[in-house]
Amino acid sequence: MVSELPERVVRDIVARALAEDVGPGDLTTLATIDADAQCQASVEARAGGVIAGIPVARHAFLAVDSQIAFDALVHDGDGVSAGRDVAQLAGSTRAVLTAERTALNFLQRLSGIATLTRAYVEAVTGTSARIVDTRKTAPGLRLLDKYAVRMGGGSNHRVGLFDGILIKDNHLRAAGGVSEAVRRARAAAHHLVRVEVEVQTLDEVEEAIEARADAVLLDNMELTDVREAVGLVAGRCEVEVSGGVTLDTVRELAECGVDYISVGALTHSAPALDLALEIADD
Amino acid sequence: MVSELPERVVRDIVARALAEDVGPGDLTTLATIDADAQCQASVEARAGGVIAGIPVARHAFLAVDSQIAFDALVHDGDGVSAGRDVAQLAGSTRAVLTAERTALNFLQRLSGIATLTRAYVEAVTGTSARIVDTRKTAPGLRLLDKYAVRMGGGSNHRVGLFDGILIKDNHLRAAGGVSEAVRRARAAAHHLVRVEVEVQTLDEVEEAIEARADAVLLDNMELTDVREAVGLVAGRCEVEVSGGVTLDTVRELAECGVDYISVGALTHSAPALDLALEIADD
Amino acid sequence: MVSELPERVVRDIVARALAEDVGPGDLTTLATIDADAQCQASVEARAGGVIAGIPVARHAFLAVDSQIAFDALVHDGDGVSAGRDVAQLAGSTRAVLTAERTALNFLQRLSGIATLTRAYVEAVTGTSARIVDTRKTAPGLRLLDKYAVRMGGGSNHRVGLFDGILIKDNHLRAAGGVSEAVRRARAAAHHLVRVEVEVQTLDEVEEAIEARADAVLLDNMELTDVREAVGLVAGRCEVEVSGGVTLDTVRELAECGVDYISVGALTHSAPALDLALEIADD
Amino acid sequence: MVSELPERVVRDIVARALAEDVGPGDLTTLATIDADAQCQASVEARAGGVIAGIPVARHAFLAVDSQIAFDALVHDGDGVSAGRDVAQLAGSTRAVLTAERTALNFLQRLSGIATLTRAYVEAVTGTSARIVDTRKTAPGLRLLDKYAVRMGGGSNHRVGLFDGILIKDNHLRAAGGVSEAVRRARAAAHHLVRVEVEVQTLDEVEEAIEARADAVLLDNMELTDVREAVGLVAGRCEVEVSGGVTLDTVRELAECGVDYISVGALTHSAPALDLALEIADD
Amino acid sequence: MVSELPERVVRDIVARALAEDVGPGDLTTLATIDADAQCQASVEARAGGVIAGIPVARHAFLAVDSQIAFDALVHDGDGVSAGRDVAQLAGSTRAVLTAERTALNFLQRLSGIATLTRAYVEAVTGTSARIVDTRKTAPGLRLLDKYAVRMGGGSNHRVGLFDGILIKDNHLRAAGGVSEAVRRARAAAHHLVRVEVEVQTLDEVEEAIEARADAVLLDNMELTDVREAVGLVAGRCEVEVSGGVTLDTVRELAECGVDYISVGALTHSAPALDLALEIADD
Amino acid sequence: MVSELPERVVRDIVARALAEDVGPGDLTTLATIDADAQCQASVEARAGGVIAGIPVARHAFLAVDSQIAFDALVHDGDGVSAGRDVAQLAGSTRAVLTAERTALNFLQRLSGIATLTRAYVEAVTGTSARIVDTRKTAPGLRLLDKYAVRMGGGSNHRVGLFDGILIKDNHLRAAGGVSEAVRRARAAAHHLVRVEVEVQTLDEVEEAIEARADAVLLDNMELTDVREAVGLVAGRCEVEVSGGVTLDTVRELAECGVDYISVGALTHSAPALDLALEIADD
Repeated sequence: MVSELPERVVRDIVARALAEDVGPGDLTTLATIDADAQCQASVEARAGGVIAGIPVARHAFLAVDSQIAFDALVHDGDGVSAGRDVAQLAGSTRAVLTAERTALNFLQRLSGIATLTRAYVEAVTGTSARIVDTRKTAPGLRLLDKYAVRMGGGSNHRVGLFDGILIKDNHLRAAGGVSEAVRRARAAAHHLVRVEVEVQTLDEVEEAIEARADAVLLDNMELTDVREAVGLVAGRCEVEVSGGVTLDTVRELAECGVDYISVGALTHSAPALDLALEIADD
Repeated sequence: MVSELPERVVRDIVARALAEDVGPGDLTTLATIDADAQCQASVEARAGGVIAGIPVARHAFLAVDSQIAFDALVHDGDGVSAGRDVAQLAGSTRAVLTAERTALNFLQRLSGIATLTRAYVEAVTGTSARIVDTRKTAPGLRLLDKYAVRMGGGSNHRVGLFDGILIKDNHLRAAGGVSEAVRRARAAAHHLVRVEVEVQTLDEVEEAIEARADAVLLDNMELTDVREAVGLVAGRCEVEVSGGVTLDTVRELAECGVDYISVGALTHSAPALDLALEIADD
Repeated sequence: MVSELPERVVRDIVARALAEDVGPGDLTTLATIDADAQCQASVEARAGGVIAGIPVARHAFLAVDSQIAFDALVHDGDGVSAGRDVAQLAGSTRAVLTAERTALNFLQRLSGIATLTRAYVEAVTGTSARIVDTRKTAPGLRLLDKYAVRMGGGSNHRVGLFDGILIKDNHLRAAGGVSEAVRRARAAAHHLVRVEVEVQTLDEVEEAIEARADAVLLDNMELTDVREAVGLVAGRCEVEVSGGVTLDTVRELAECGVDYISVGALTHSAPALDLALEIADD
Repeated sequence: MVSELPERVVRDIVARALAEDVGPGDLTTLATIDADAQCQASVEARAGGVIAGIPVARHAFLAVDSQIAFDALVHDGDGVSAGRDVAQLAGSTRAVLTAERTALNFLQRLSGIATLTRAYVEAVTGTSARIVDTRKTAPGLRLLDKYAVRMGGGSNHRVGLFDGILIKDNHLRAAGGVSEAVRRARAAAHHLVRVEVEVQTLDEVEEAIEARADAVLLDNMELTDVREAVGLVAGRCEVEVSGGVTLDTVRELAECGVDYISVGALTHSAPALDLALEIADD
Repeated sequence: MVSELPERVVRDIVARALAEDVGPGDLTTLATIDADAQCQASVEARAGGVIAGIPVARHAFLAVDSQIAFDALVHDGDGVSAGRDVAQLAGSTRAVLTAERTALNFLQRLSGIATLTRAYVEAVTGTSARIVDTRKTAPGLRLLDKYAVRMGGGSNHRVGLFDGILIKDNHLRAAGGVSEAVRRARAAAHHLVRVEVEVQTLDEVEEAIEARADAVLLDNMELTDVREAVGLVAGRCEVEVSGGVTLDTVRELAECGVDYISVGALTHSAPALDLALEIADD
Repeated sequence: MVSELPERVVRDIVARALAEDVGPGDLTTLATIDADAQCQASVEARAGGVIAGIPVARHAFLAVDSQIAFDALVHDGDGVSAGRDVAQLAGSTRAVLTAERTALNFLQRLSGIATLTRAYVEAVTGTSARIVDTRKTAPGLRLLDKYAVRMGGGSNHRVGLFDGILIKDNHLRAAGGVSEAVRRARAAAHHLVRVEVEVQTLDEVEEAIEARADAVLLDNMELTDVREAVGLVAGRCEVEVSGGVTLDTVRELAECGVDYISVGALTHSAPALDLALEIADD
């Protein structure tokens, strides 16, 4: 199936996570649970938030035992309150217990990201700014982390170094300035990729636009400078801001009229959402 | 080299992280930086904390270009203040810029975990309790996350489902009680693995000890119950507590005389430590 | 399915074995057998012994063609006499012939191990000693070899270097003696792992117990010394013996009162059990 | 380097074997041995035999630590008596101990195969018969097992199903007889592959030769029939015998004038050669 | 299923091709096509030729979505005229569009090879010469390319360096001549592999036959020399010619009475056959 | 090193290609060439063309034996005449011969692509049109094929489905027209990716521009229509043409004023450039 969460990627990451946790065998479960024991279980939210990762959790259970019945009670992107069941399972008790932690590790991380993203998105409601993620994701989990941002209502920035050009201060230092760097980038890139460049001053904003940059990045700029830069740009290219954005400061930035606000914390510092699996009493 | 951070594991994770970020090529760097450009650069802490992951970051840079000179200025486990340089680099500008984000993603995550762990460890100073991690790690990063906990001064719990037996409430529900579950576990396990069992009541504590459990886990128990349980155990087995432990509550728990306090947040909710790479002006 | 023989492990090993044998194609079968030919076949024991590896053999046939019907006529762990059919198959003649050798290679090796293990286990019947395996397994086949030992009635020692601590003479030489080594091991290991130490003399036995070792290993010790050591231990820790154990000597050792007798030959020198596949005449 | 033991194959098998044994870490060594400890060690034969696998053992040590100095004192194929050192090592104590068992597992298995092969080869000295192996090898170790056979003085049969055509009784049953099967095989095979066919009777021998088979296989045939078949063939094709060959029966078979005697036991039932690593006292 | 196109090989190559093309996601399809849209589509030949690769194309579609219905309208090896539909599909529009290019890339390449091969085969109709391929295939696609040659009516040469011995001029230069090289090869090879040797002169032809070569290769030899060589060989071994063979020259070569004509262009220079997928209007 | 040809990609493809060709061993070389034989050799162009793939060929030789000295005599992108040596080698004769075909297969394919690309590029000299490739590459070789196009002087289109949006007729049929499809694409894509759309009529050209497409693709359009479309666009977006472009027709298309001419034949139908390795006489 061609969905927003590529099956091949999910399969590989889940397989790796299960191998890492189960290794040569789940000693406790094999020892204490009968091979033919069956159970019903539920996954419950222990705190309020936005759910993301249901298909990944399902995949983790089914990778251990394709006979498990996994019924999602919410969709990715749904907000839930504490105490709400998000999924019900039935199947081999051994399989459910062996997959439990791996499934929850995905669900808790991704829901944590979606929950934090939702908070940022709601903070800028009514403005034209979009909350976007960064490449500051957990190594190996880039596509999942970015999926969770979308489930929280945010937008994605480029996936990696290969699907967009973003010339940052370190590049500029080595490339000899905004005009020259943008020119080189435009010449080298194929015609379906855009070029964005980080700028520090209003002069550089103008220089970027003249060099035909598709977007400018205002990094760690004062609010008043951001406002002035947006005015100077006047729609001639897109404007992204980044750098130390918090829930307290994001609305002011959004109200400057920027197009994108990128927030590394969405993926590198979102606390996990508390979720737990409970096997039902008979 | 046989170190605490297995080379094979680091190599694989770093390769995957680089492939994920660089993919078919770093468009920006290839376009804007000359192939033979050389640079000096430093990695700076932008916030105070405990550093962990220096060997992983080094590996990331060297995986991109084995000619890069990477000099660590601190050791993993060292505390640093904001503004402190933690490493210096010299080499191909292209390689440094292409590896930058991958290297920092590891370093920021692991330092975040070490920093949070250090706070918990310091909160229980002078007690006999050890702060230990859980299996609530980022999928694919288990060994790195657990290494960071050690660098923060914490101890590790078992690595996965394969190197220790921990019978939790869900197992007990299916296995028919503490005695029976411990007995089964002891019979199935090889003789170098211990058996720990979760208990809810003082009666179960006694039952666990009689069944010759090596340790009991008090999960989400009231402080007074914890204290009483420790008294009842009286050194006959080890005692671990877990469940909703925070920096505010951890010392009280430690002072109950428990042996281990396991904290999921160390690895699932530690905010990243802010670190940045800066290329030096010529 | 969560069983004693992890599906993921079996799948990988079988895939590798088939790739190794079939490579770019089974020339003989493709050339001489019609694509739509069907057959019935049986796997017959040509010598008496204990069967192990039926699920692996089944997997090998099904990996080549998921339409093959494979019916086991015995269970792993069952003893069989020469001439007994252990499985029947029906399906594509090409697939059966292409998978034949790979399936039999697993079944013959594992049954050989189970058969030899059974002989050792029967030799110590009535004593409290358990026959255990070692890490002297065929590279890449550790989990299968250890499974076969269980099917023969033996017990497993630790799986690898990661799930138990066993301090041997070479470690002691470098670590400065029994007490110091046990102390270091206890401090470094997580709380669900036990510590065993090799001892050469009765003094070292006492030293190990005082250092709180969980078990002592008597390696290549004279029978009288083993007996004396067991008396000295008096239940304060577990006792394992190893070194040059044969079917002739194993009972005497068991009768010394040891807990475990580890036998490398179970996995490194068991002769294959003779089994053959025969296609039925129409 | 292009040698008889392909580097790529050795590297992969050794990596898998180390991963299997070391997993997330060598608990004992990390706990008891200082990171900077250095040692000298030797690998000693504890029984007489033929050595094979020195390059694989070396590779295992170097895969753990490329700084280890490994000096072979014998060549693969050399015979040794009990007590003879076959290699000396110097380097990190941790690395030597972590690699020890993996290295020895290869060396003991391959030397066991070479030793048994040598016995068969010597038993047929002076005849024109060559001792050859079969596809009855440990799954995943085919190329190493076959290398060990060569080191013992034996010859290899085809590597797998892809580099030679051998029509066995099961194929014949489905293909409609010797002539038809050989004809089909010749038509399908590329022109650098030969065709061998199993025969049960002297009539079939004649039929095989008329169909232009390059070799006939006499499987489990009586000695007198073998002798007669060789006479009938009279050099018109090559003759291989197989089936239940033992050290007691092999010379009689060889003296019948056959070209090849294939012996499954060389690789499926050779007992390991006893070898041990010992760290030197300072 | 054991077919001429090993499933494992097809699965791996298709997976790699899809990963290469789809990467982190098919942006266009995910953006423009509804998740539940269904379509009917056909694959049409836009030029006349011989079809090869239908099972590979099917596998590519099914790897993206196992629910796609793929009906082949022709068999591999069938000739088609421009305008002919070769397959019909029905299923998820997203999946069909995401798999389209990967499926067609296989089908166009393999059909191109089959088409060119057919032309060579037809050019030598009525002679005893067989058109065979070489090892000049696209890296990673060896088995598919060789399969396409068979579908075009050609025969395969050895698969790689491991399943046949072909001593070429570069070997001869280093090995000291035809006799010595053939002798060495025969001694080293197992008894199911044949030995072919490249010869430059009639003297070398004779030398090769005396050394008991199974075949000689006449590389880039003049037509008259080829004719003379065939006469000299007189059936005592097989004769292959190669080197700069074109559709214009192949028949003359065939009429010299050679057994095999190997043509590198079949796999390294065959133009792709033009095929396209079209989604049906509702 | 961060170059245009990612080292990781080259390493993987070369390893796979060598495994495919060498498999369990190069029978001919091992049999006929002494292990310590050394040679000098050269790679010669047997036809004129543009060289591409020198670093890949070097990697192939060094992957077999890192001691081989490989000296390139030309750079990728250089034109050569027949008879010109493009590289010289010295080293182990075995290694050179074993790597020869794999190295040449890469070099011949990539040089063939570069050579054909150069012809197209020269045909449009003086116009503003750039020759670009397509996704019609050999499965598994996408990045190498696209590199060869650059070496021939061409430009690359997007790498795959993930780094650019190109809405083709099949998408339009399912998405409900140009405006709607472009709008959806723009909404879904991150802000560094452009949107191109295929158009059939001048009305659709206008519709695309109004929907803010970044580029239009004129597929299989008549020359006069192309000219008219370019006029209508008048620089408001970029214009690409594709479909059945040949060396005969490409200049006329270029003179219409289009920005990009994409040519599938560059990578799916370029004949290999004839190159050969020759070992020097002593």
